[in-house]
Amino acid sequence: MKLFSSVHDVTDIKQFVQDALDLKSDPHAHAALGKNKTLGLVFMNPSLRTRLSTQKAALNLGMSVIVMNMDKEGWALETQDGVIMNGTTVEHIREAAAVMGQYCDILGLRSFPKLQSRDEDYSEDFFNKFVQFCGVPVISLESATRHPLQSFTDLITIRETWKGAGTPKVVLAWAPHVKALPQAVPNSFAEWMSKAQAEGMVDFTIAQPEGYELDEQFTGGAKLVYDLDAALRGADYVYVKNWSSYKDYGKVLPASGNWMLTNEKLRLTNNAGVMHCLPVRRDLELASEILDGPNSLVIREAGNRLWAAQAILKKMLS
Amino acid sequence: MKLFSSVHDVTDIKQFVQDALDLKSDPHAHAALGKNKTLGLVFMNPSLRTRLSTQKAALNLGMSVIVMNMDKEGWALETQDGVIMNGTTVEHIREAAAVMGQYCDILGLRSFPKLQSRDEDYSEDFFNKFVQFCGVPVISLESATRHPLQSFTDLITIRETWKGAGTPKVVLAWAPHVKALPQAVPNSFAEWMSKAQAEGMVDFTIAQPEGYELDEQFTGGAKLVYDLDAALRGADYVYVKNWSSYKDYGKVLPASGNWMLTNEKLRLTNNAGVMHCLPVRRDLELASEILDGPNSLVIREAGNRLWAAQAILKKMLS
Amino acid sequence: MKLFSSVHDVTDIKQFVQDALDLKSDPHAHAALGKNKTLGLVFMNPSLRTRLSTQKAALNLGMSVIVMNMDKEGWALETQDGVIMNGTTVEHIREAAAVMGQYCDILGLRSFPKLQSRDEDYSEDFFNKFVQFCGVPVISLESATRHPLQSFTDLITIRETWKGAGTPKVVLAWAPHVKALPQAVPNSFAEWMSKAQAEGMVDFTIAQPEGYELDEQFTGGAKLVYDLDAALRGADYVYVKNWSSYKDYGKVLPASGNWMLTNEKLRLTNNAGVMHCLPVRRDLELASEILDGPNSLVIREAGNRLWAAQAILKKMLS
Repeated sequence: MKLFSSVHDVTDIKQFVQDALDLKSDPHAHAALGKNKTLGLVFMNPSLRTRLSTQKAALNLGMSVIVMNMDKEGWALETQDGVIMNGTTVEHIREAAAVMGQYCDILGLRSFPKLQSRDEDYSEDFFNKFVQFCGVPVISLESATRHPLQSFTDLITIRETWKGAGTPKVVLAWAPHVKALPQAVPNSFAEWMSKAQAEGMVDFTIAQPEGYELDEQFTGGAKLVYDLDAALRGADYVYVKNWSSYKDYGKVLPASGNWMLTNEKLRLTNNAGVMHCLPVRRDLELASEILDGPNSLVIREAGNRLWAAQAILKKMLS
Repeated sequence: MKLFSSVHDVTDIKQFVQDALDLKSDPHAHAALGKNKTLGLVFMNPSLRTRLSTQKAALNLGMSVIVMNMDKEGWALETQDGVIMNGTTVEHIREAAAVMGQYCDILGLRSFPKLQSRDEDYSEDFFNKFVQFCGVPVISLESATRHPLQSFTDLITIRETWKGAGTPKVVLAWAPHVKALPQAVPNSFAEWMSKAQAEGMVDFTIAQPEGYELDEQFTGGAKLVYDLDAALRGADYVYVKNWSSYKDYGKVLPASGNWMLTNEKLRLTNNAGVMHCLPVRRDLELASEILDGPNSLVIREAGNRLWAAQAILKKMLS
Repeated sequence: MKLFSSVHDVTDIKQFVQDALDLKSDPHAHAALGKNKTLGLVFMNPSLRTRLSTQKAALNLGMSVIVMNMDKEGWALETQDGVIMNGTTVEHIREAAAVMGQYCDILGLRSFPKLQSRDEDYSEDFFNKFVQFCGVPVISLESATRHPLQSFTDLITIRETWKGAGTPKVVLAWAPHVKALPQAVPNSFAEWMSKAQAEGMVDFTIAQPEGYELDEQFTGGAKLVYDLDAALRGADYVYVKNWSSYKDYGKVLPASGNWMLTNEKLRLTNNAGVMHCLPVRRDLELASEILDGPNSLVIREAGNRLWAAQAILKKMLS
């Protein structure tokens, strides 16, 4: 594996989930695999779970890790070609990426969208150029339009916890927020769940207010419902997440009705497990009573980030 | 040991000091103890000595270390329960702490007081919630009201350097500063010295201007003197430190007389060793002539931070 | 080797270059040398190549690495002696350096000039005091007036790529920029090339506009040319770099003529390899067509930073 940027980079998601769960049961089984190998983690934006879990995953495989907070310890990067660099950008991504590839065996990159131009963000220009010029395998630590480490983790968590008969019903439920957030997490989740649905692993529904439709390249096969209560009926997993509008790009549109998940709404489900990628705004996106209650899977989900990252690193090292 | 937040977490301080000195004489004797274990160091505030010495201590024990500057690389954390998180805090301490505990075997936390509300600071709400929710052993890297790694180091340094007969006289001497500083270091020092006095290891005096009395929960058994010169007579160790008022909380009160330690004042002592936790403001808190002279113990003291941290980590790993 | 701050700290540069190239061909041959040793990297200013390559070099030797971004994770340091520290500086370099030396076996320090006072910058007061007070071997990660790791790398790259008969002609060519940059890189490059010229390894020319003459302590033996085209004729290596004026200290002086290297100008050379320390401003300092073309050595040069750093660390550990 030379690139992990979306579900399309994985050939067999069922096996890949199993690989991660095997690592969870025996974390240090491959401690020699990463000997003398270095993982470079490049952050253009803040991180907590991704930073810590990916570091720990690499350490479990015997790799060393170098973290580079490019935004804070480095400088602004230019991505456009053909510009005279007489402004505020100090180095071009062509050089910066190539240089990082000189010192690291695998690189991870986090780079958020600016939410100003849909074309720019959805071109994944920054991420793609980094991959193109660095010359080593790359793991997305969340790009402008996807967060595949998170979505892989989410599928691991569903597989790990699902003890029912048949196929679990999974609902991605839009939630309110005060800020305009990227679509990366819901895009990626939809993409992974659509693939999982195609393989008979889940039954997948998206619940959202009108105007919040995601790009259809990610949602193929998903049922789309504009009524949260209707979507929740019979749900086995509810994945709560805010995102800004894709159509009216980057905007926070008014949403009629109550979209925050509460215990009252949870009673409509099949005693569903509640998931969130974190960080979560308590009592704005998701009720505290759920986060502090028995149905919350959010901490287990965060813990599983480690095994998702380790499975990918293992694949790249093998 | 599951928690190191104050002297009360140590059952036998004499033995604990000896453990640290044993590690100093053979730093790598326990290099296998931390195999496959990760220490996470979480900083809400800047650090030099604590950051470096605790990292090195963990490395000496074979642990790996992940540093998280939450204030710079992460985001603002909410600590209050029951609030709708529609403001500037991005994640609740409940989730953030629990998540960090998923990736680390031991966590260290630094979190300074705001010096605005005495009740809030002295409740140690932030530190205690972190301990409560992270689910793994925690070392205080300085909290709102205590800096136990520093005070343990100070006791190690006194034991290591005291060659006299009998019990050394230790004076905690308030010093001037231009900023309002926390009481954490003097609180903690007083707490450790009071315990050490109770065990016959030191004779402990606090010298300070009126209005700078510390919370009595930390100073039990200490002699309190309002005249620096009187306190210095016969002193074997002078621990210089500024702090803001506890009574008139967080305020810098006017102090009559000269409270900066100089060579002239040092002549009143029993050729005392001079200590300071650092960073120190030269010629404001403490005269350069002392820092550059033969009585200064400040660099040795800083070096001993390593063995204090290593002794605690060793205890937690054992 | 106790200090690496300039070419004067190296006794045999030919052998030293060979040592680096030997490490490049067998990076992990000395993986036991750094066991239980810690390298501390102290940054007062941003870094990409230096930070990553020096970390990786230390890891290859089995050392552990602690990075300290003093400007971001720490606080402002005082360097002047005899001042009452009642301003914004929190700690004196005397204490800060000594403390870092307590935890690290080797220290690296990056500290840029302020470009306000030539006397202050060229005294190397900050760097020298750090060396004086830390008590352990020190590597310059770029100081006010020199960047010896870079220049050592440049010599390695020339030796590695030169396949011609005789002595290669090396031209240091001033280039335009929008900001006032330090003279550290050209000073250091000139110093290393002058030494290399004295040992018959290169033939060295400096091309620059009038007013940009470097301090003569660095340029002894170099030919000085004020006409870029004339200098380029017969060049085997062109080292492109901007710097601000040394004479009219820290100023960006007007430069008549076109000083940006392009393919057209490159045709004047002996099909020269083009070098730059990076980061480079594309199409301002150096044409994109060169950076993206076959004559560019900049990525290889950046990659060689690793072997330069490893050769120095190996020397210090031996």
